[in-house]
Amino acid sequence: MSENNLQVLLRRRPAGEPVAEDFEVVETPVPVPGAGEVLIRARFLSLDPYMRGRMSDAKSYAKPVELGGVMEGLSVGEVVASNHPDFAPGDTVMGGSGWQRFCVVEAAKLRKVDCNEAPLSANLGVLGMPGLTAWVGLEDIGEPKPGETVVISAASGAVGQVAGQIAKARGARVIGIAGGAKKCAFVVRELGFDACLDHRGDLNAQLDAACPEGIDVYWENVGGHVQEAVFPRLRDFGRMVMCGMIAQYNQAPGADAAGAPPGPNLGPVVRKRLRIQGFIVSDKGWQRYPQFRAVMLGLMKSGQLVWKEDVVQGLRKAPEAFIGLLKGQNFGKLVIAID
Amino acid sequence: MSENNLQVLLRRRPAGEPVAEDFEVVETPVPVPGAGEVLIRARFLSLDPYMRGRMSDAKSYAKPVELGGVMEGLSVGEVVASNHPDFAPGDTVMGGSGWQRFCVVEAAKLRKVDCNEAPLSANLGVLGMPGLTAWVGLEDIGEPKPGETVVISAASGAVGQVAGQIAKARGARVIGIAGGAKKCAFVVRELGFDACLDHRGDLNAQLDAACPEGIDVYWENVGGHVQEAVFPRLRDFGRMVMCGMIAQYNQAPGADAAGAPPGPNLGPVVRKRLRIQGFIVSDKGWQRYPQFRAVMLGLMKSGQLVWKEDVVQGLRKAPEAFIGLLKGQNFGKLVIAID
Repeated sequence: MSENNLQVLLRRRPAGEPVAEDFEVVETPVPVPGAGEVLIRARFLSLDPYMRGRMSDAKSYAKPVELGGVMEGLSVGEVVASNHPDFAPGDTVMGGSGWQRFCVVEAAKLRKVDCNEAPLSANLGVLGMPGLTAWVGLEDIGEPKPGETVVISAASGAVGQVAGQIAKARGARVIGIAGGAKKCAFVVRELGFDACLDHRGDLNAQLDAACPEGIDVYWENVGGHVQEAVFPRLRDFGRMVMCGMIAQYNQAPGADAAGAPPGPNLGPVVRKRLRIQGFIVSDKGWQRYPQFRAVMLGLMKSGQLVWKEDVVQGLRKAPEAFIGLLKGQNFGKLVIAID
Repeated sequence: MSENNLQVLLRRRPAGEPVAEDFEVVETPVPVPGAGEVLIRARFLSLDPYMRGRMSDAKSYAKPVELGGVMEGLSVGEVVASNHPDFAPGDTVMGGSGWQRFCVVEAAKLRKVDCNEAPLSANLGVLGMPGLTAWVGLEDIGEPKPGETVVISAASGAVGQVAGQIAKARGARVIGIAGGAKKCAFVVRELGFDACLDHRGDLNAQLDAACPEGIDVYWENVGGHVQEAVFPRLRDFGRMVMCGMIAQYNQAPGADAAGAPPGPNLGPVVRKRLRIQGFIVSDKGWQRYPQFRAVMLGLMKSGQLVWKEDVVQGLRKAPEAFIGLLKGQNFGKLVIAID
């Protein structure tokens, strides 16, 4: 194998918005799998907002990437060499690790995927971590019921697009929130949401019009002024699925600690019997992956699940694409096609 | 029956803190029970913070008391006359209604109580709505586990004292928060909490000392600066049982609407997978009353449940006592002994 590995490293911890200089792209030798390990050539890398947390050393639910370490991420690709009987060269697998072309992974962390069921890259989105996130959050917290009003922020994004379509399939009325007319049109026309509101406009007025009876379930991806507009409109027994608050990921270290912008007064939580609950899909979500995948494939077959990817060519473009993701510049699930 | 009824009416809606002039005490004829109804002479009336909400016409989970109407409340007493075969004069019952000496209640809303099991007034506290509130909130939301750290605000109050003792019985480490040295001493010495912090002192420093590893369950009765100190100390998978926020009950109408003081930034809800959930015991709690009562009587027998009442003599004193309750001037479960 004459090819080199290509890796994106964390050069320094960002202050606020990450910049290109926070990353470093290096060529290194292709790693060699040890006992029970598999060498994978990644074809697609998933870029997701949670990675911003890994760049920071503020206390969080997962360890930060070390300075000089490979950026954390999930990829799909092909087995090149295997020291485990379950995998053979040429198998397509999900579970690749890191922003890099080649990686070595324990066999136990890999899953073979059938590319007849869906394109390979879909295993990073609708059939991957973001899709699983959407499904787990609705199963465990949102629990949308027929006729309920569900509001999904970042509706055209990787998680939002799946969450909204699952809620629609369950009979809920689904209102998206997205940035700009193009994304909003996509959310309604392609994803089939009942409406989509542009958070760059007057969100309060748009919510009044779209949700005159209030909101039963709010899928929180963004925080900030969107949360501020949605929270007072929650109905009795409303649920807030706290998936992320991307609007503050670039704020000072530990934006949730001292100096964080305030949140809503919690009085209505008592009076309206609200439930505000956070979750992280990596806690126990993957144990339920087979059930999730079966549900998703069923929805695909019945035409109730479509998806949009924003594919950027080349691993060297990953830092720039990721910086744009945090600003909402992607349109659909952001993946890197690895050259 | 030559005796008159004595009633406390809502004369006007309070602006901020209720004052004596918001109430009116009147003598009226004793009511006559209709078909299926029972006439009760109340012996004890329960005074509880939720009644502040009923004095206001701001939107809430229950209808407000009408101007000129009898203040809402629960009482225990004796059957005087009955038009239902299940009840006979002399029976002791819970389910009396309103701030009044005599009331007429549908038989279906009454429950006979055995005064050999506990004193009559206990059916308004540890065996009544506040006790049921404590039990339901811990069963459904708090779910304290052995070794976990549970913090109870308003720890010497009607709900707090029961919630803390249930959590202790389940093996949790229980830290109370109360106002003043006397209440704090009671919470530790009589109720058996592991510690009790005085919210009039430096609560942050006291919490650091008492909960160095953080807090797993927070029982929210008060809001305000207590919530502000506790929230950042919640551990991963922490639960906030949102029972009440008495600190803002006297604020401008709809203190949870425009003009409400801000609450915590919700970023940590995602990162720490917190669950913040409100509940109202009257939703479905009473359906579980028999199970609750059996649990409480069991804890009493094993010496794991004690309680303190603050008994005020005379229905005419109810307005003054209630005004004091909202300022934390009561010490233990506030009940009126009806003359």
